[in-house]
Amino acid sequence: MGEVVECVPNFSEGRRREVVDRIVQSISSVPEIKILDVEMDGDHNRSVITFVGNKSSVQEGAFLAARTAAELIDLTKHSGEHPRMGALDVLPFIPIEGVTMKECADIAVAVGERIAKSLEIPVYLYEAAARKPSRRQLENVRRGQFEGIRESIRTDETRRPDFGPRQVHPTAGAIAVGARMPLIAFNINLDSQDLDAAKEIARTIRTSGGGLPHLKALGLRLEGKGLVQVSMNLTDYTITSMSRVFDEVQREANARGVQVAESEIIGLVPLDAVCDIAARFLKLEKFENKQVLERRIWC
Amino acid sequence: MGEVVECVPNFSEGRRREVVDRIVQSISSVPEIKILDVEMDGDHNRSVITFVGNKSSVQEGAFLAARTAAELIDLTKHSGEHPRMGALDVLPFIPIEGVTMKECADIAVAVGERIAKSLEIPVYLYEAAARKPSRRQLENVRRGQFEGIRESIRTDETRRPDFGPRQVHPTAGAIAVGARMPLIAFNINLDSQDLDAAKEIARTIRTSGGGLPHLKALGLRLEGKGLVQVSMNLTDYTITSMSRVFDEVQREANARGVQVAESEIIGLVPLDAVCDIAARFLKLEKFENKQVLERRIWC
Repeated sequence: MGEVVECVPNFSEGRRREVVDRIVQSISSVPEIKILDVEMDGDHNRSVITFVGNKSSVQEGAFLAARTAAELIDLTKHSGEHPRMGALDVLPFIPIEGVTMKECADIAVAVGERIAKSLEIPVYLYEAAARKPSRRQLENVRRGQFEGIRESIRTDETRRPDFGPRQVHPTAGAIAVGARMPLIAFNINLDSQDLDAAKEIARTIRTSGGGLPHLKALGLRLEGKGLVQVSMNLTDYTITSMSRVFDEVQREANARGVQVAESEIIGLVPLDAVCDIAARFLKLEKFENKQVLERRIWC
Repeated sequence: MGEVVECVPNFSEGRRREVVDRIVQSISSVPEIKILDVEMDGDHNRSVITFVGNKSSVQEGAFLAARTAAELIDLTKHSGEHPRMGALDVLPFIPIEGVTMKECADIAVAVGERIAKSLEIPVYLYEAAARKPSRRQLENVRRGQFEGIRESIRTDETRRPDFGPRQVHPTAGAIAVGARMPLIAFNINLDSQDLDAAKEIARTIRTSGGGLPHLKALGLRLEGKGLVQVSMNLTDYTITSMSRVFDEVQREANARGVQVAESEIIGLVPLDAVCDIAARFLKLEKFENKQVLERRIWC
């Protein structure tokens, strides 16, 4: 596999397994696609499917996922805690291997246009695929959700979709299609019960507080452990490395007389991000992920 | 690829490319084998081929490598700096994925027996495949080299081979067949020109000096950089981790008023060893290589 694009569509259905299974089947029907993960969340009534393939197979898989979701999910009957605006709600393409971010943005544009034309669903391009600066943030694109967009898409010029009709699809809504880096969910637990300290540290280090770029952070209490946590999403580890994040949190914690207890990575992490950590802490002068034995075997 | 065995045969030929090419071709002729690396060394007149496959394909590839080497290499005409006793000199099998060390030792036994029977070459089992404690160390097995073993194999009971005739093959010599962990070649450069310090640190940390298990170490001068180096081979990173080695070298260096300048990994390193480093330095509570995105894709 020389060329690998990851696709992580989010669907507004997390309770009916048969619906999610049908969507997975439609994606799997494309040769050279590998499904990495399927997560259903009943509370949020939402599912996330993770799959990889080469550029053309991922495009086909993503389109079939959109079509199957439009057939089987009726958003007028949907309720759940998570913000959403479409049956297939968010469709990001992520460069993993031998593919640039530009190419992933091009894929988003091609798939978005096809979805709009064939399925008559309005498409907003977001993040690296965005054509308007205001659409680089997914939160902006999804503002108002299904119910709100139904109105604003017709009346508000700033809500005009990049592709497709200027009205939401009656049951499938609208879709945000984009390109982004892999997300890393990284949490650092502090040996403390001081929730304010965790919240302060989170505010200090996150991008929105003027801290590190590409970092979202919240302070939380972990009831079970009797600790507080700085819970983070790192949206571009090539700009802000995990070791940089760890160092900053540790520094901020120590400045408040608090120690780092432990940390955790939730879900998947790119090999490069792991190699970066090793290189940083062992002072490795030259180290590239091509030196990882398994990569040589599999790649 | 659920099951991966690595095989790293060493051959007593590092100058005639056509000979090495023929050996590589014979290995590659086996389906499901992947050649990872071919290194020829003219000074040592020696080559190292690295390949991987499942249990049965690796056995077949190793046997064909032995047969081709016996056909094309005449040890009576060989000279070079490296100790050797066979045309195919050393044949280790290494567990990488979904295979135990015991299974690799069993492969060594099966291939060793086949080589001895079919090619009439004496075989010594070494390291994890050794049947005598004295043969766990490759240096012991190879003592005397081709010329010395020619005599001792017949007269010295302790040099009786595990399989095959009690005389060396006239042109192909004898072969050490074994099972071992992946080697990691790890060097740490000190911000110093004090060669004695590097040598002292090496002596202190290495296994033979009562230091860390599974660690070989030498102190060297790096003329080009104006630094000294602790040059190491880590023979079982699951027992002595790279971060442990780094910490110890750093501690010993600091105790002598010397700083670590940088480090380097020469060649390949198992993914687990890299994940260990990340987990250690980020205090990752639970972290396994299954969380590495690319592993999920390729494995």
